Amino acid sequence: MAESRIEFRAEELAERLGGELRNCDPGKLLRGVRPLEEALADSVSFLANPKYGAKALASGAGLILADPRSDLGGQPVLVVANPYWAFARAVGLFHPEPEPAWGEAPVHPSARLGEGTRLGPGVTIGARTVLGARCVLHPGVHVGDDCVLGDGCELFSGVVLYRRTRLGRGVRIHANSVLGSDGYGYVLVDGRHEKVPQAGWVELGDDVELGACVTVDRGVLGPTRIGAGTKVDNQVQVAHNVQVGEHCLLVSQVGISGSVKIGDYVTLAGKVGVAGHLEIGARSIVSGNSVVAKSLPEGSFVAGIPARPHREWAEAQAALNRLPRWIRAQRKSGKD
Amino acid sequence: MAESRIEFRAEELAERLGGELRNCDPGKLLRGVRPLEEALADSVSFLANPKYGAKALASGAGLILADPRSDLGGQPVLVVANPYWAFARAVGLFHPEPEPAWGEAPVHPSARLGEGTRLGPGVTIGARTVLGARCVLHPGVHVGDDCVLGDGCELFSGVVLYRRTRLGRGVRIHANSVLGSDGYGYVLVDGRHEKVPQAGWVELGDDVELGACVTVDRGVLGPTRIGAGTKVDNQVQVAHNVQVGEHCLLVSQVGISGSVKIGDYVTLAGKVGVAGHLEIGARSIVSGNSVVAKSLPEGSFVAGIPARPHREWAEAQAALNRLPRWIRAQRKSGKD
Amino acid sequence: MAESRIEFRAEELAERLGGELRNCDPGKLLRGVRPLEEALADSVSFLANPKYGAKALASGAGLILADPRSDLGGQPVLVVANPYWAFARAVGLFHPEPEPAWGEAPVHPSARLGEGTRLGPGVTIGARTVLGARCVLHPGVHVGDDCVLGDGCELFSGVVLYRRTRLGRGVRIHANSVLGSDGYGYVLVDGRHEKVPQAGWVELGDDVELGACVTVDRGVLGPTRIGAGTKVDNQVQVAHNVQVGEHCLLVSQVGISGSVKIGDYVTLAGKVGVAGHLEIGARSIVSGNSVVAKSLPEGSFVAGIPARPHREWAEAQAALNRLPRWIRAQRKSGKD
Repeated sequence: MAESRIEFRAEELAERLGGELRNCDPGKLLRGVRPLEEALADSVSFLANPKYGAKALASGAGLILADPRSDLGGQPVLVVANPYWAFARAVGLFHPEPEPAWGEAPVHPSARLGEGTRLGPGVTIGARTVLGARCVLHPGVHVGDDCVLGDGCELFSGVVLYRRTRLGRGVRIHANSVLGSDGYGYVLVDGRHEKVPQAGWVELGDDVELGACVTVDRGVLGPTRIGAGTKVDNQVQVAHNVQVGEHCLLVSQVGISGSVKIGDYVTLAGKVGVAGHLEIGARSIVSGNSVVAKSLPEGSFVAGIPARPHREWAEAQAALNRLPRWIRAQRKSGKD
Repeated sequence: MAESRIEFRAEELAERLGGELRNCDPGKLLRGVRPLEEALADSVSFLANPKYGAKALASGAGLILADPRSDLGGQPVLVVANPYWAFARAVGLFHPEPEPAWGEAPVHPSARLGEGTRLGPGVTIGARTVLGARCVLHPGVHVGDDCVLGDGCELFSGVVLYRRTRLGRGVRIHANSVLGSDGYGYVLVDGRHEKVPQAGWVELGDDVELGACVTVDRGVLGPTRIGAGTKVDNQVQVAHNVQVGEHCLLVSQVGISGSVKIGDYVTLAGKVGVAGHLEIGARSIVSGNSVVAKSLPEGSFVAGIPARPHREWAEAQAALNRLPRWIRAQRKSGKD
Repeated sequence: MAESRIEFRAEELAERLGGELRNCDPGKLLRGVRPLEEALADSVSFLANPKYGAKALASGAGLILADPRSDLGGQPVLVVANPYWAFARAVGLFHPEPEPAWGEAPVHPSARLGEGTRLGPGVTIGARTVLGARCVLHPGVHVGDDCVLGDGCELFSGVVLYRRTRLGRGVRIHANSVLGSDGYGYVLVDGRHEKVPQAGWVELGDDVELGACVTVDRGVLGPTRIGAGTKVDNQVQVAHNVQVGEHCLLVSQVGISGSVKIGDYVTLAGKVGVAGHLEIGARSIVSGNSVVAKSLPEGSFVAGIPARPHREWAEAQAALNRLPRWIRAQRKSGKD
């Protein structure tokens, strides 16, 4: 998923990231960065939050970045002062940001266009990008390097696809939406917010439709993904590594924080916010303007800030409305 | 309003939409799709929600799409399994999406530009579009086919006008705003969200000003309209078929759901949300961050989630703030 | 800060703005517009709200626009019916909107590009704009007249910088963000919202990063400013004359109203709103979805609508959740 063609010996990483190896052959080759639970024998992973200690002990990672207080038994560890910052720099080492390939020509000579695909004036297409058949790119669309678009996609003016974006068949994206911008990831080091390189990409399934001025950030590692048949309204924000299921409805001005997982057939009504790393079970409905602050089981129907079962919410609302009258009554009867 | 130059016989529609005619001459000519209350003798209309039965009985429509359980007396009916889905397909039949006309030239040869109108580099103008005098289109503006712009309009870089957008005189639109993108309309058929074609357009009155990254969707049928003199801040979302009055103020990050009607001189403060199909009476003020969940009479002054009269809201807020203290007091006195 | 090279005699202003001079030499030269507390001996200022009367009495302004009821002692005054509207027109007189300079060439011949700076296809650069070394402007970026970009800036596709925008070194701005659009300022005159000219600009410090579809309005007079090292997520709105400190985090869909001042190291979590003219002290944290309605001292940790100390908010939330159960209990015991 997140492997690059770059490799480092453990001792090189120790030098570059400024740490000390434990239980690790200095010559061991590492070939990528992965989360603890997905790590392979040649993956670097990291333990920044002690609550994931058990995951780190169970991980198959070839090298774990951890702080001096962590006790990871016999696991191969690179002891560093700030594991998250070391992780950020490791991502940068394995995924150096390539220079964009554009030259003078709006369509890079290495791009390939399917039969019947039409490009409006002012469209630019990056290197090695492949467009399916019968795509329509309206004037002023910008597609980066190494993108893949399925057959029959339509992109309206001003849409921007960053490098490595992947669209299924029949995807429609309305004007000025952005796919693949950097996720919002920083780590505070010596009073400065240092950037966590965003080395992933964005993937949209077949028949996804996005409204205007939607933003979908690329993953840190791996994809941010929106499943087939999901329809997204204008001005929705989807953060890095979010996984949206199939046939969902995300109504206007929804904001979804990083790494959220949303099942199939979920509806998030207008202006809903979802906090990071939560899961929303399939077929759930979140009423407009709610804020989801806890994971929700399948088939939930919730409302409010924070979101709770619709019935509870309605009851609390009713109580709140009666409250002033009731407090007045209590006060009169000398209870307050 | 929504008529096309396409016509179908009732029996053709029955075949294409898969239904059975009742009380209707199979040869009757239908020439467009309209809501029940605006339907003409050659209009197709539909009854999807039983609560509009009376409207359907009173409608002058030439053909009403309705489900088998509906009893519409002697009205001409096409009985279908899913009237809303049949309506969506009927819209598509009467309003087939035209191919965009652009070729190599950034300004289509059939476009007409008024005297003194200036186009920056990278501007594209669609077929048959007419720009008034003294317009200024900054670099990278994209105007679609069949648009009409009044005299003295100024569009900043990255603005996108979809086909058929109509602007009055002296309209200013800031960078990267989008007018005329598809409204958010789908109907669930066999587990898939099928698209309701969006066949309308956007209309802005004289002296309207829109901020940056504003989105205004085209109507399903007919226009989404913003009245003369109304000023819209950045990142506001206006859904399909919304009608905003004259001299309104829509502050940043407001979201207005489909078919809402807003009177003249209304102020919606920052981040306000308005639920679908409501009416907000003239000279109303909605405080920032409120959610309008019911229609409001003229001159309303409301706040809160959901929005209620400002005084009630302030009282409820005060009560809520005192609540913890009060509960503690009650508990001490043994009441809880 | 807001001086122009234009000057007017007091009697000329009296004629153009339609008012009467008091305590003022008709030949006095005025050279700009400034707020009361920053006004110089050749500045025009204004008193629209009587609560600032003391400031007006203490001001060193060369001429104060005030209404007939204001008593400003011996201060030099231009008595007008509507001081704010007179101020708006005065801004327009001293800061006439220049015509954009673009011609046929995408890069204006007077623009200067630093060594190693790369421009993608479709980039446009305005007159007299200066780009530092090693900047990367992706396809379809539009930079206006009189901008200044430091070394090593990267602007992604569709970014729009209005005239006079100033970026420090190493600034990164993601796709379709807009800097320098007009602030949202109008004054109601005879039933119409007349525009207050927006004569300022936008300034970003070194190492600022902005996400996609962010909007930052230019100041009315002087700059809207975002301090060095501050990181801004997608779809954030920053209104005119906001001053954001250094090393802040503004998470997605935050909206900041006009003239707000934010200290260093402040975090505004997702969807937070901040009302106009407030101050948020350094190192404050505002939880997601909160609305800041009062100024906050340094080191605040707040939540809720309106935002209050996190502990109070949590207590009120808990009380609200218990409320229905408790009301039921009280009702049973015959108290309601």
